[in-house]
Amino acid sequence: MISSKMKDLVANSSIIRAMFEEGKRLSDIYGEENVFDYSLGNPNALPPENIKIEINKILNEIAPKLVHGYMNNSGYEDVRGKIAEFLNKKHNIDISYNNIVMTCGAAGGLNILLKTLLNPEDEVIVFAPFFGEYRNYVNNFDGKLVVVSTDIDTFEPNMESLKEKINSKTKAIIINSPNNPTGVIYSEKVIQDLANLMNQKQDELGTSIYLISDEPYREIVYDNVVVPYILKYYTNSFIGYSYSKSLSLPGERIGYVVANTNMDCFDDIMISLNVANRILGFVNAPSLFQRVIANCLEAEVDVSIYQKNRDLLYNYLTKIGFVCVKPQGAFYLFIRTPIKDDKKFCEDAKEFKLLLVAGSAFECPGHARLSYCVDYKKIENSLPAFEKLAKSYNLK
Amino acid sequence: MISSKMKDLVANSSIIRAMFEEGKRLSDIYGEENVFDYSLGNPNALPPENIKIEINKILNEIAPKLVHGYMNNSGYEDVRGKIAEFLNKKHNIDISYNNIVMTCGAAGGLNILLKTLLNPEDEVIVFAPFFGEYRNYVNNFDGKLVVVSTDIDTFEPNMESLKEKINSKTKAIIINSPNNPTGVIYSEKVIQDLANLMNQKQDELGTSIYLISDEPYREIVYDNVVVPYILKYYTNSFIGYSYSKSLSLPGERIGYVVANTNMDCFDDIMISLNVANRILGFVNAPSLFQRVIANCLEAEVDVSIYQKNRDLLYNYLTKIGFVCVKPQGAFYLFIRTPIKDDKKFCEDAKEFKLLLVAGSAFECPGHARLSYCVDYKKIENSLPAFEKLAKSYNLK
Repeated sequence: MISSKMKDLVANSSIIRAMFEEGKRLSDIYGEENVFDYSLGNPNALPPENIKIEINKILNEIAPKLVHGYMNNSGYEDVRGKIAEFLNKKHNIDISYNNIVMTCGAAGGLNILLKTLLNPEDEVIVFAPFFGEYRNYVNNFDGKLVVVSTDIDTFEPNMESLKEKINSKTKAIIINSPNNPTGVIYSEKVIQDLANLMNQKQDELGTSIYLISDEPYREIVYDNVVVPYILKYYTNSFIGYSYSKSLSLPGERIGYVVANTNMDCFDDIMISLNVANRILGFVNAPSLFQRVIANCLEAEVDVSIYQKNRDLLYNYLTKIGFVCVKPQGAFYLFIRTPIKDDKKFCEDAKEFKLLLVAGSAFECPGHARLSYCVDYKKIENSLPAFEKLAKSYNLK
Repeated sequence: MISSKMKDLVANSSIIRAMFEEGKRLSDIYGEENVFDYSLGNPNALPPENIKIEINKILNEIAPKLVHGYMNNSGYEDVRGKIAEFLNKKHNIDISYNNIVMTCGAAGGLNILLKTLLNPEDEVIVFAPFFGEYRNYVNNFDGKLVVVSTDIDTFEPNMESLKEKINSKTKAIIINSPNNPTGVIYSEKVIQDLANLMNQKQDELGTSIYLISDEPYREIVYDNVVVPYILKYYTNSFIGYSYSKSLSLPGERIGYVVANTNMDCFDDIMISLNVANRILGFVNAPSLFQRVIANCLEAEVDVSIYQKNRDLLYNYLTKIGFVCVKPQGAFYLFIRTPIKDDKKFCEDAKEFKLLLVAGSAFECPGHARLSYCVDYKKIENSLPAFEKLAKSYNLK
């Protein structure tokens, strides 16, 4: 009775639920402390203390109608103005509130962008491995997802393959750096090459090809690696930003879309994003948290927690024979599975109470993702289990 | 360059914006106190004092990860459980957390419902006048909106016309009581007649026809009129609820969908609503406010403010010759325009600094909507303007 589009998703969701319940079952049998769940991306760094302080301040100082009331579907103008000012300073750009639409997280942002851009059958390019939801978001608007491979030694886009796959139906390319699931950050050179190729193809095809940079992990970066700011490298560019990870507020659904002023059809696109926010049912990004983040633009979570986790886990896993590109950001490790069948590998890992996600979920089989946004102690305790897993495959 | 589906909406949005800017322009010229804006449905009753108290309590007593973190896409189980318990007691029903999905307001709820139910070309019936967004929501999923008229002396559904319009493509009927824009509440008899007809048609056609009751105004009710609880009258029924008006929190985007346990395909539908919440980009209803409303289930805004406004405005307008069904709920009056052309009437009203919305926006021409969620004093001050407007049409 449910719609055809939802049928497969509901079936698939039952598989995910079964996995989740398997984790619960293991915890019930062996005790929660003996099960090592690396499957979820729920940030475990605490939100900055300011969040609570600012909530109190806002509730005490601003009239309820201006905290909990309706506003422009794009969000409070003063909030958008503060973000624009912050970004101008930080990235040496020149935007205003008019370049920004407040969104229900990056997921809401990507959906209003695709609603705005896609006609049925329009193509959207992503680089595997990629966040599985991109397929669903594109499918919401009857677009066609086109997958381009990456070099599995670096997880950088394969430019030759990209060149072949861009055609007159290509409406957008989604990138995600720092990346889920690999933790890789695209260097300035990668971005420059991508921009050059896209510009060349736009000229050749006479079309607009938009670059959408999905950046929920922008602030989760190690070793002072720089994440290039896309708006400076490519004209037809958007950034979908989220405070879910940068301020550990994933449940609050707060983020924004920022658009390059010089893009094709800027005015129509900004109005369309506003209308899409309304008609897709978001209406507006949650109002109190719009005000909260505007007062916490300089705040950050303690990224060193994640870096410590990365170091421990990356060093140990590679020492015992696993192969893995060293992540420079986000909180994921994407290891190569010692057998081709990544689903079987994850089943095997479960024998040692290790819960991982198969690379197939990111359309990159032969790999598995570990989310290391867990307690350091837990990681320490899990190391013997990884060692047993490695030995069972005769690694090293 | 924007998608075809968005093109008309963007054009239309410019008209709305022009109207809005016209209001601003009038305020600039004549002073804000001399412009009477009855066009917006932004609730002006204060949120209950508990909201602030509960936010503080939650932030002080519950771990941040359980306030701001990810949870099941359907929402916190304990929050859903508390709502179920509250509804069981209030309406003498028997549901659990499993019947409820927390949503980003009623708008988010309607979108996940339609995503779940609609295949392209499936039909959704609404009764004119209706909230204009229904057309957009149905269009999001390529459904077809079918409009059934109401009796303009009562604004109750025309059952004969409904009977003719239900066919094998009919997937759902949306009702909205208390109604935007008329303020009418459907009596138990209307609901019973509707349920009987729908049951008869389901038997005849061998299909499932779902009843979706959009209830953001459920608590905004006058003179102790009872709003029948749909789940008790029809098996294939959903309610889309919102705290936007009942607690004056429209910017916070918090509400829920509740489904009748005995409906066709209940299990698949509940999973699908969960998945739709995720893939449409809502992910989950804002987390802090899930907890806030769970602690404020007995709270309410001061409805007497709206009742006072209604009484003043309804009594005065009918006294000076306007024709209008007396609203029993919500905060709208839907007057019959003395000329056929409702857009022209609204233009004329603007001459007297009265901002109204033409009935055409609700697909019921020959009427105009007044939102009376404004200050009482403002209404008093606007009465001479209404009198001049009436006189200009030689009413009474």
